[in-house]
Amino acid sequence: MFSELIPPLPWSFLFIQDLIGTIVFAISGAIAARQHKMDIFGMFILAFVTGVGGGTLRDMMIGSTPVFWMKQPIYVLMISLAVVITAIFRNQISRKSWQTGLLVFDAIGLGVFTVIGVQKGLDFGLHPLICVALGGVTGCFGGVIRDILRNEVPIVLQKEVYVTASLIGGVIFVMANSFGLESDWVYLATVFTVIIIRLLAIRFNLNLPKV
Amino acid sequence: MFSELIPPLPWSFLFIQDLIGTIVFAISGAIAARQHKMDIFGMFILAFVTGVGGGTLRDMMIGSTPVFWMKQPIYVLMISLAVVITAIFRNQISRKSWQTGLLVFDAIGLGVFTVIGVQKGLDFGLHPLICVALGGVTGCFGGVIRDILRNEVPIVLQKEVYVTASLIGGVIFVMANSFGLESDWVYLATVFTVIIIRLLAIRFNLNLPKV
Amino acid sequence: MFSELIPPLPWSFLFIQDLIGTIVFAISGAIAARQHKMDIFGMFILAFVTGVGGGTLRDMMIGSTPVFWMKQPIYVLMISLAVVITAIFRNQISRKSWQTGLLVFDAIGLGVFTVIGVQKGLDFGLHPLICVALGGVTGCFGGVIRDILRNEVPIVLQKEVYVTASLIGGVIFVMANSFGLESDWVYLATVFTVIIIRLLAIRFNLNLPKV
Repeated sequence: MFSELIPPLPWSFLFIQDLIGTIVFAISGAIAARQHKMDIFGMFILAFVTGVGGGTLRDMMIGSTPVFWMKQPIYVLMISLAVVITAIFRNQISRKSWQTGLLVFDAIGLGVFTVIGVQKGLDFGLHPLICVALGGVTGCFGGVIRDILRNEVPIVLQKEVYVTASLIGGVIFVMANSFGLESDWVYLATVFTVIIIRLLAIRFNLNLPKV
Repeated sequence: MFSELIPPLPWSFLFIQDLIGTIVFAISGAIAARQHKMDIFGMFILAFVTGVGGGTLRDMMIGSTPVFWMKQPIYVLMISLAVVITAIFRNQISRKSWQTGLLVFDAIGLGVFTVIGVQKGLDFGLHPLICVALGGVTGCFGGVIRDILRNEVPIVLQKEVYVTASLIGGVIFVMANSFGLESDWVYLATVFTVIIIRLLAIRFNLNLPKV
Repeated sequence: MFSELIPPLPWSFLFIQDLIGTIVFAISGAIAARQHKMDIFGMFILAFVTGVGGGTLRDMMIGSTPVFWMKQPIYVLMISLAVVITAIFRNQISRKSWQTGLLVFDAIGLGVFTVIGVQKGLDFGLHPLICVALGGVTGCFGGVIRDILRNEVPIVLQKEVYVTASLIGGVIFVMANSFGLESDWVYLATVFTVIIIRLLAIRFNLNLPKV
């Protein structure tokens, strides 16, 4: 009915990972909503802000409006899908095997969102230092807003090299970019670096020193 | 003194309801501030974010800046009025008859804010699915921000078909709009639908199932 | 390496105070992060949102994007400096003499941020009443966001004439401006008024009545 308003999907490796990241972040929001006994639409809202919150804040700050998920309805559909998945598999989702899987996907999301945020900053001609910060905002603030809404101190600020992995990825990406590298391999290398740092930190329970 | 900077007021049925919604939402913020022993200006801030927070977030996300309340000082005046009303009637305001009245006005605000948000999305040429989301943001996020500031899990995400009423209203509005209906009657029918769903939910203590 | 992307610094009395305000606000964020046992990057994030949060919200609401700290990397450097200072002097920082110093600098930051916010509103041609509100947002919302992230009711809404000092300063500034006064003296007089009101309120433990 409204198909003329939907732009064609930009299928690419990064876009598919973006959708995966959105779904996984949204699932983590939906799980948090369950723990607080929210109803199905409260769950949807929490899934929504976790899935697209970081990118929304990024777009509002650089002035890329309407923000990204308004231009491409597939994000709303992906988040709805995440809520349905969480509702159907609610009993399995607390099992250890699922938890491990979610952490892996969450690391993928963190890596992809970081790269997308940095790239958007570069597209807007911002200073590389600022682009690294934008990557961090895109990767981490979905989780920050989720934890604000569930009334807890954001866990990504406290534990396990989360912001750190995103910022290291951002630095690698802008440095590769400044050397004239712009291929898909730089995207991939950055995403994998973030994922590996993050998973190693979880595996060995690494935390940065508290000063 | 600065009268040349004030645009003429767009008196209309919807605008008057908008002002009513702003005042009532602001009162609910001011009451929350009292419960946390804030001073009169803290009360003003909480009234402010509750009254205009949803519309502010909407305008920032679609890029309609400066945001709406900056273009028309009457919103600041309405919020000041709400703070004064709350301060004067602070003893009566916890009575049952007042509480019931506030719930009715709050339902009016929810309905009107939803319609305004959806309409603004349509004006910006956004996909109807996104417009429904925008209506939900406009109607619900004032209360969400209020509860974040008072350090509680947002009640609108937990109870009594609040977000739901807004989203159902949004769907009705965009569907009527897609059939070419654009009259004041569509506005009114949508607002009343939201109000009735919301009041029925309160009256019969309806909550959506938690999944 | 990226020096061509950095605009020249607009050295002026107000700009230097702006940097001081940013550092002090950032230190207050970093101290809050320590109390919640965040790691060094969590501390950086909290310092960041406290230092630039108010101005970021202001710029997003009026549509001055990319927001101010994206155009001038020195803000990120100042915040990094604040984190380093906090980490090095973490044992001294809780001493009474330091606390008093921080309160004085915080009052400077509040005054300067208020003036910058009001001036930016006037530059955008907004109504003076709105400009006063913008000054309040710029001065106070860094601290509000800090307290949201540390999961507490924002202290600036509860205690010691904080928002009030900012709003009084804003009113003085727009009134002087409407009388055609635009010199550095008006800036200075406003900043000092805010500082004095704030410090007197702390010294004599003044709080506004709770209504």
